[in-house]
Amino acid sequence: MDVIKNGWFSEISQLWPGQAMSLKVQEVLYFEKSKFQDVLVFKSENYGNVLVLDGIIQCTDRDEFSYQEMLAHLPLMSHPSPKNVLIIGGGDGGVLREVLKHPDVVSVDQCEIDENVIEVCKKYFPNMACSFDSPKLKLHIGDGFEYLRGHKAAFDVILTDSSDPIGPASSLFEKEYYELMKNALKPGGVICCQGECLWLHLELIKNMQDFCKTLFPVVSYAYTTIPTYPSGQIGFILCSLDSNLNLSEPLRKFTEEDIKQKKLRYYNTDIHRASFVLPQFVKEALDTPSAN
Amino acid sequence: MDVIKNGWFSEISQLWPGQAMSLKVQEVLYFEKSKFQDVLVFKSENYGNVLVLDGIIQCTDRDEFSYQEMLAHLPLMSHPSPKNVLIIGGGDGGVLREVLKHPDVVSVDQCEIDENVIEVCKKYFPNMACSFDSPKLKLHIGDGFEYLRGHKAAFDVILTDSSDPIGPASSLFEKEYYELMKNALKPGGVICCQGECLWLHLELIKNMQDFCKTLFPVVSYAYTTIPTYPSGQIGFILCSLDSNLNLSEPLRKFTEEDIKQKKLRYYNTDIHRASFVLPQFVKEALDTPSAN
Repeated sequence: MDVIKNGWFSEISQLWPGQAMSLKVQEVLYFEKSKFQDVLVFKSENYGNVLVLDGIIQCTDRDEFSYQEMLAHLPLMSHPSPKNVLIIGGGDGGVLREVLKHPDVVSVDQCEIDENVIEVCKKYFPNMACSFDSPKLKLHIGDGFEYLRGHKAAFDVILTDSSDPIGPASSLFEKEYYELMKNALKPGGVICCQGECLWLHLELIKNMQDFCKTLFPVVSYAYTTIPTYPSGQIGFILCSLDSNLNLSEPLRKFTEEDIKQKKLRYYNTDIHRASFVLPQFVKEALDTPSAN
Repeated sequence: MDVIKNGWFSEISQLWPGQAMSLKVQEVLYFEKSKFQDVLVFKSENYGNVLVLDGIIQCTDRDEFSYQEMLAHLPLMSHPSPKNVLIIGGGDGGVLREVLKHPDVVSVDQCEIDENVIEVCKKYFPNMACSFDSPKLKLHIGDGFEYLRGHKAAFDVILTDSSDPIGPASSLFEKEYYELMKNALKPGGVICCQGECLWLHLELIKNMQDFCKTLFPVVSYAYTTIPTYPSGQIGFILCSLDSNLNLSEPLRKFTEEDIKQKKLRYYNTDIHRASFVLPQFVKEALDTPSAN
């Protein structure tokens, strides 16, 4: 646990060389090596409880809503009637919480590789891991890759809430995984996947966008702001099988009353649209045809 | 210089308690106490050269364009014909560089309190401090507050590129300063000021918005993403004397050719519009009338 020094946790990784976000630690609540990864939970001074996997911040009480809401509502509001939803990863339960806010959703299958993460989050993140007892949920402990192989044309929306492309989640950033998701979608289906940071991983994003375009007629990139992810934002790769769909224009809208009742704190219709608008350097990079 | 430990600079401040951005240091290039503040320049491993004032990152070679472009082009593209521009602060020269990209601009007055910052930036940030020899520029070394007292109805656009509300810039976040800017504007004039971070300083932003609304018929808040500012984004407070102006809809548009020729890397017309779209929790906070 040398990631905590002098009372500060620092997020140092080769994925973002030369920079690190640090959070002041009040108390270490949990640390174990699970079968798959190091699982650390600490109480921070100013961000509530913090979940760290293999040294990388996954979520904090203070700002998790931004990521969870956007990952779930961007694709769900872009689908005309999302009934069957699959979540790959998402062991903290936050994306599940958001998916269940959609009354159209009849069933949610969730496939998380590390049962330990779910148990830890039930204990230390009760506001995130609050929906694992939903009667709509079928929870599968196992590899998302393997799970998808066994499912064809089964889901309206597939969400991938993964960690970064090192460790147990690395295969979730490859073309084969996107092919499996495509095959597991019903006609008109939509996927939304954690898509790294435009300030840090533009080449990776460009590469993923390129292979997605060979698989799906519609591919888009959106992003949200979130202080505790590297460089303060994280993106989403969205794809649809419906060639007429404009992912940046939601098909349905939450009313002000919905927003209050569903306790939305980040997502609204205007943010949905704005999240697809990219800075000029990103637009140029993603619009330029690749050399190979 | 205890802000650098084990080869890392860490930005620790009571303005963002319990969190810190760290950058890996390759070489310290400059450190002096000026008349007003500690001025540090270091070469970082991954962000180029970094300017630090009183322990707080002001700009890095890698991401400065986001802030400088947005601070300048949001108000300049919202003014029908910006001829006379005033910059308060901005000693690194980046905002001046962007202002001079507008052919309508006839004169730029700039008032920076700390001459030392300008000299340091000319040496270590040649891509930012590249325009101090412009014939359109009148440079004044002194206090922005005092400078404004002497000018009535003189400027179409006033930009405040300040550090945070501690140290030499603290008075630039108060109502009196905004009153002086208002008086220094020509009819229909527009101001744009560094407006802190919506994830960190929502109360300060709300307070500033409230007193701005007592002075200007049009007040708006926008923001940009930028990895090396606290929490990865920074906002702008924009006000206009033209009660019919919609600041989020630019009056003029850069063509693709303009964007290439002016080497814009962040700003474009769509980003202009999107930068005013606020997450739900910010929208609610800023829309709610204050108690007092």
